[in-house]
Amino acid sequence: MKLATLKRGGRDGTLAVVSRDLRQCTPVPAIAPTLQYALDNWSALAPRLQAVSDELNAGKLTGAEAFDPAACHSPLPRAYQWADGSAYINHVELVRRARNAEVPESFYTDPLMYQGGSDSFVGPRDPIAALTEDWGIDLEAEVAVVTGDVPMGASAERCAEEIRLIMLVNDVSLRNLIPNELAKGFGFFQSKPASAFSPVAVTPDELGPAWQGSKLRLPLQVSLNGQPFGRPNAGEDMTFSFAQLVAHAARTRELEAGTIIGSGTVSNKQGSLHGSSIANGGVGYCCIAEVRTYETIETGKPITSFMKFGDTVRIEMLDAQGESIFGAIDQRVTRYGA
Amino acid sequence: MKLATLKRGGRDGTLAVVSRDLRQCTPVPAIAPTLQYALDNWSALAPRLQAVSDELNAGKLTGAEAFDPAACHSPLPRAYQWADGSAYINHVELVRRARNAEVPESFYTDPLMYQGGSDSFVGPRDPIAALTEDWGIDLEAEVAVVTGDVPMGASAERCAEEIRLIMLVNDVSLRNLIPNELAKGFGFFQSKPASAFSPVAVTPDELGPAWQGSKLRLPLQVSLNGQPFGRPNAGEDMTFSFAQLVAHAARTRELEAGTIIGSGTVSNKQGSLHGSSIANGGVGYCCIAEVRTYETIETGKPITSFMKFGDTVRIEMLDAQGESIFGAIDQRVTRYGA
Repeated sequence: MKLATLKRGGRDGTLAVVSRDLRQCTPVPAIAPTLQYALDNWSALAPRLQAVSDELNAGKLTGAEAFDPAACHSPLPRAYQWADGSAYINHVELVRRARNAEVPESFYTDPLMYQGGSDSFVGPRDPIAALTEDWGIDLEAEVAVVTGDVPMGASAERCAEEIRLIMLVNDVSLRNLIPNELAKGFGFFQSKPASAFSPVAVTPDELGPAWQGSKLRLPLQVSLNGQPFGRPNAGEDMTFSFAQLVAHAARTRELEAGTIIGSGTVSNKQGSLHGSSIANGGVGYCCIAEVRTYETIETGKPITSFMKFGDTVRIEMLDAQGESIFGAIDQRVTRYGA
Repeated sequence: MKLATLKRGGRDGTLAVVSRDLRQCTPVPAIAPTLQYALDNWSALAPRLQAVSDELNAGKLTGAEAFDPAACHSPLPRAYQWADGSAYINHVELVRRARNAEVPESFYTDPLMYQGGSDSFVGPRDPIAALTEDWGIDLEAEVAVVTGDVPMGASAERCAEEIRLIMLVNDVSLRNLIPNELAKGFGFFQSKPASAFSPVAVTPDELGPAWQGSKLRLPLQVSLNGQPFGRPNAGEDMTFSFAQLVAHAARTRELEAGTIIGSGTVSNKQGSLHGSSIANGGVGYCCIAEVRTYETIETGKPITSFMKFGDTVRIEMLDAQGESIFGAIDQRVTRYGA
């Protein structure tokens, strides 16, 4: 089934079941007022939500409303946990190559993961708000999963069973704040402002054969200012599956239902380390930093600038029939408070 | 007023108003079912909670129940944000001195802060659960504040006004996992398991003159296995006030109501860099790592071991009259799942 959170009813919005074709939806307050509530009580409520979904997809539900992604918040408008991995090592290799640094051997067996801020996500059509362009505003197009309750030390196999939902995410990054922040040694904080998630989160069964081994084997579609920017396959070159990422997060502590675990920026090797832009016949990129790294390796300096006020980014994924699975994240960079 | 969350009524517990002397409490479901709900609607609900508090403290409330810290969860059993600063630079200086590393100049003007996991805190009397002692289990006794909604880029002055509640925290750390994790560059993750907070969170006015300039000017009382271990004053040697820490967190993003910001391990200089143990007439320490660092500087190697299964830690703060302000965190280390 497909679930969305409508921007009505308070900070956590109103849970709605969405039709497979993303044309219709129906709020389900009698079953679960919010997505977090549904996740907190998943085994009891999922069958009831599924029944609504079945009726909606069969055209048997009276009173369904038109589904409007612009009326959506992120599926979890705020979450108790957002932890982002870096499962596409090509991204790490590329960034390190640009500064002549090696990728440690352990990076291929021990996932990179950072704890992100989850108190105030923005909606899929909300602005990327910043106080200044000088922060170096970048997108990061990724896939993310939402878990149920996971015990401490759970195996990857067990964690695979606890993946409840899948969605897309724009993990906005402030590139010019990162070097100073990482040099301090405590990870990202100011350099990772509010993320936005796709209008719709879906259960694994909705993805059919595209969901395999806890990886989503379809191309991510990224546009920058209306131009194709990236279309790498999220199932390729993913060194760690989502099950492995969840197990990493749960190694020393329990994960509570509603935990969001991200894949990190999707990045394909394309037979070489650098990859190629879509204009050059490649699958392109999922963040501007990679393009700039590629440009630095090739020409000695970055050419493409980070996002400016007014710039737009669109992130989407299509199924084998060319239909949007999650709806599109579509954001414009704006000055905060303007 | 003083607020606690009783372990009944679901994952977020039941909000209760607690008497100043911590002897009585009364659940307030008709005003706010949970602390998060109260924080989400603070301006409307705080006066109503205050009225209950006034009645309770005046002995005019009928039906109050005995307050039992063992029946409490952390005031926010799970939170949308937990970000921990490192405001007592003595702690940082000490740790770096042990490995002959300098403290960068910027550390005195730009706070260290890491994003912590907030999805599943444990209660103040719950075990510190770990799968193995080999992780190097350590306590970190700290003070923390809970904020209201904070706009992006808010000044420290503005942030001071958004401090709603103050509490104590045991930010459990797995020391033997830290070096490898920090070397990866993305900050703490597995090395920071579930934290526990004091049974009671209090509004700033409860602290009287002890709350000054967004610092809590009273000694923290820490015992390890029943022996006095630390009693440093939380108002001394705090390089950054809570208002400054909140402003740091809000520099590039909004903070949502219920955000918890920690002080970092409380640590006093005591006239010298090393400090002294309580047995040697000093104010002692708030984490075992500092003792080990001191021992390393003095003798070439650490002597005190990290916590073992069965070990206990107690963290409390007394007011000028010797009465407990927040109730005590009192935890025993146990094997997870045993």
